[in-house]
Amino acid sequence: MTFYEKLEQHQQKLSRLSHLSAICGWDQAAMMPAGGNEARSEAMAELAVMHHELATAPHLAEWFEQAEAESLTKEQAVSLKEMKRGWQMSNLLPADLVEEKSLAGSKCEHAWRSQRNDNNWHAFSKNLEKVVELSRQEAQIRAEATGLSRYDALLDIYEPVMTTKELDQLFSDVKSWLPSLIQQVQEKQQSEAVLTPAGPFPVEQQKALSLEVMTKLGFDFNHGRLDVSVHPFCGGVPTDVRITTRYDEEDFTSALMGVIHETGHARYEQGLPAQWRGLPVGEARSMGVHESQSLFFEMQLSRSETFIDLLAPLASDAFDRRNDPALSSNNLTLFNTRVKPGYIRVDADEVTYPAHVILRYEIERDLIEGNIEVADIPELWDKKMTEYLGLSTRCNYTDGCMQDIHWTDGSFGYFPSYTLGAMYAAQFMAAMHKEMNVENLIRERNLSPIFNWLDRHVWKKASTVSTDQLLIDATGERLNAKYFKQHLIDRYLK
Amino acid sequence: MTFYEKLEQHQQKLSRLSHLSAICGWDQAAMMPAGGNEARSEAMAELAVMHHELATAPHLAEWFEQAEAESLTKEQAVSLKEMKRGWQMSNLLPADLVEEKSLAGSKCEHAWRSQRNDNNWHAFSKNLEKVVELSRQEAQIRAEATGLSRYDALLDIYEPVMTTKELDQLFSDVKSWLPSLIQQVQEKQQSEAVLTPAGPFPVEQQKALSLEVMTKLGFDFNHGRLDVSVHPFCGGVPTDVRITTRYDEEDFTSALMGVIHETGHARYEQGLPAQWRGLPVGEARSMGVHESQSLFFEMQLSRSETFIDLLAPLASDAFDRRNDPALSSNNLTLFNTRVKPGYIRVDADEVTYPAHVILRYEIERDLIEGNIEVADIPELWDKKMTEYLGLSTRCNYTDGCMQDIHWTDGSFGYFPSYTLGAMYAAQFMAAMHKEMNVENLIRERNLSPIFNWLDRHVWKKASTVSTDQLLIDATGERLNAKYFKQHLIDRYLK
Ligand SMILES: [Zn+2]
Ligand SMILES: [Zn+2]
Repeated sequence: MTFYEKLEQHQQKLSRLSHLSAICGWDQAAMMPAGGNEARSEAMAELAVMHHELATAPHLAEWFEQAEAESLTKEQAVSLKEMKRGWQMSNLLPADLVEEKSLAGSKCEHAWRSQRNDNNWHAFSKNLEKVVELSRQEAQIRAEATGLSRYDALLDIYEPVMTTKELDQLFSDVKSWLPSLIQQVQEKQQSEAVLTPAGPFPVEQQKALSLEVMTKLGFDFNHGRLDVSVHPFCGGVPTDVRITTRYDEEDFTSALMGVIHETGHARYEQGLPAQWRGLPVGEARSMGVHESQSLFFEMQLSRSETFIDLLAPLASDAFDRRNDPALSSNNLTLFNTRVKPGYIRVDADEVTYPAHVILRYEIERDLIEGNIEVADIPELWDKKMTEYLGLSTRCNYTDGCMQDIHWTDGSFGYFPSYTLGAMYAAQFMAAMHKEMNVENLIRERNLSPIFNWLDRHVWKKASTVSTDQLLIDATGERLNAKYFKQHLIDRYLK
Repeated sequence: MTFYEKLEQHQQKLSRLSHLSAICGWDQAAMMPAGGNEARSEAMAELAVMHHELATAPHLAEWFEQAEAESLTKEQAVSLKEMKRGWQMSNLLPADLVEEKSLAGSKCEHAWRSQRNDNNWHAFSKNLEKVVELSRQEAQIRAEATGLSRYDALLDIYEPVMTTKELDQLFSDVKSWLPSLIQQVQEKQQSEAVLTPAGPFPVEQQKALSLEVMTKLGFDFNHGRLDVSVHPFCGGVPTDVRITTRYDEEDFTSALMGVIHETGHARYEQGLPAQWRGLPVGEARSMGVHESQSLFFEMQLSRSETFIDLLAPLASDAFDRRNDPALSSNNLTLFNTRVKPGYIRVDADEVTYPAHVILRYEIERDLIEGNIEVADIPELWDKKMTEYLGLSTRCNYTDGCMQDIHWTDGSFGYFPSYTLGAMYAAQFMAAMHKEMNVENLIRERNLSPIFNWLDRHVWKKASTVSTDQLLIDATGERLNAKYFKQHLIDRYLK
């Protein structure tokens, strides 16, 4: 057996442990009764330790060295590169830093749950300072190993190859037109009369509608399920993708759009190439590309007028409300494209969402690079919210800088993926339009060509090429904000 | 840290891996879509290998030696003994025999699924011969290590301390009165008019009834769930017990009695002592004792006239059939205590069931000891079925010696546990009767004293004492068939 083959075998073993972790994690969120949590957490922590020990086994250094000297096919060379990237990532951090960060993160997150309610920035900031300090240490170690800047080294975990330099360009482009665009959209929408669909919408009917829409979107139920959890997510493994939602009896659109979003994530996972299963090269390319698929499904596709023409009668039938004007195609289109600046990122619409992300990006970048301190956050948050969305968060930490869970456990570098995903998605849709009449296909209820395009250009590529190359191969050009801007103008100002 | 403490820590690690295996196994049976099976099986096989490696780590021999020389509390000494028993069991068999047996078992089981339908004993017997040959090898190795006979060494896996000698005594006692008792019961029941409850009984209503009855039986939903699977079972872990059932819209009693049965298993698991959690001494004592709890719930308790007085109105309400005479307490009692000799063990009633078990026991005992060969099975089966139940299985292998899955993968020594469980259960109930008026408690809807008795005498004992001692402590005498016989006479002939 060659060393490359040994590494593949080793990787399959790691992948099997990840499989168990994914299923038990899904169960913990979607099935497990509360009383099972302590033993489950212990069992999963044990598995994580075993995974880490296996991923950092001392003999791997030699295996990689030997494998790199072997004659490999072009595909194997790419696969080896991705395996090595994962191995290096696993080995980078000293165990005591990982543990210290995990403990500080748990402590900060746990306290945050009540501190946020209490608007208690003072107490929260003490815990956050510790988390930031350890994240800076982590960033420093990653920076030294990769030759990147500190923040770029964190960015690299979620969005390989992406840099602060490129992000600054992309986001300053967006910032140059977004605030005025938001203004214009609001003015235009002022004159629109929109009905809010009135509940109750029984859970069972919402579930049936969700399953029907998932089926139309090509979700493979032989390789996945839909269930319920407090925080919706897409989990499981490519051969068995578990998506979840949360039903609100007063508003069926939140679960429906959420399910469509997760279905986008799920189809990416289900569409990953079988020949690379279990190997890093066969995994999704990045967080941003993953989000591009969910946002393609949710934003590009499902909030379009044409697609809502398809959804509205399904909803009317599901809830047996064929004459409810709030469920008409026209009203649902207006309802699902309402724009209103607000404090909370997760509640934001497609147009204002990037402002929330850019704000967080700018703050966390400066925080990790050491240009600002935790104590500076509230003022910066208030200033940027006022500048981008015209909303002040002065003294309102709950709906300001304490609203997200991400920073509490030191997940710095993650936020940009959301808006990168939105841009990728818009660029994919624009490229697709050059090859086919997407609206006509939707009208004809013939969605396969759309999914086949994504399958060919994104899903089946997995991690065989860089994100840059993926974009160029699929759209003919590198990532830029132009298509996202045009999409917003087309949808919200015409 | 003492060596005893090191062993405890090691055992907790094994227990955490078993936790992951239990949850992923439950998921595979109750949740997983078919397409996920291949990757899941691989992941679980990997986990089994890691568990085995850990359980047989070479340094454990010294740890046990050192721990045995340490000064231990009485409880620790018992715990050490149980850990050592598990360790020795794991180490007994050479890896190649385990693998060969696993492969032969998979092959035999897989082919059996179609061969059984085809009544193809000839083809099946070839596979079974291989399984028996390997099981004899296993028995031989276990016999040499334990000083037991070959079959006793297999029995010891499921029912520690039980021997062929004792089983022969118990079962010959049963055989001396069972056939004529079956005869008498049938004659008595001939004159009874019983209505078969007529479906459909909607699944949702059956589920609601099941949950209601589980609640009355003290199932702790903070530490467990009820779901659906093709073959009902009790899985999960003590802090999160997963029971399953299968609903038949034409017959609600099958799922209801099945749920009650699994609830008995579940309460044993949920009631195991927290202070020994994760250690062998804190686990259920044996297969037979486990079955005694499910049969206590299902047979001793729930098929009694008094308990059906409690169940019947719940069922009438659940199905909104308050005037259906088939759902009257009187009719449901008759319906749930019908006795009719049949070919199939899993469909057998309480009275004829032991005949099925004794038949299998006698054949597998002689098979493993080498007194008979696979080719002799059909004739013996026919002879014993005729003798015990008056039914011939000549040339009918499908409903004869090919009906069970157990032998296909070499699970010899397991069948006796079913009838041992029934005997333990009857003996427990008789002892309980000396301390309280069980019927009155049921009539007063005050079931706690019943469950507290089981908790004190069985659940909280876990594996801290031998089964023999457990019986003596709980009932004042060793296991005997007298109480089981008396129970059958009281219920079926009075
Ligand atoms: Zn997403
Ligand atoms: Zn059972």
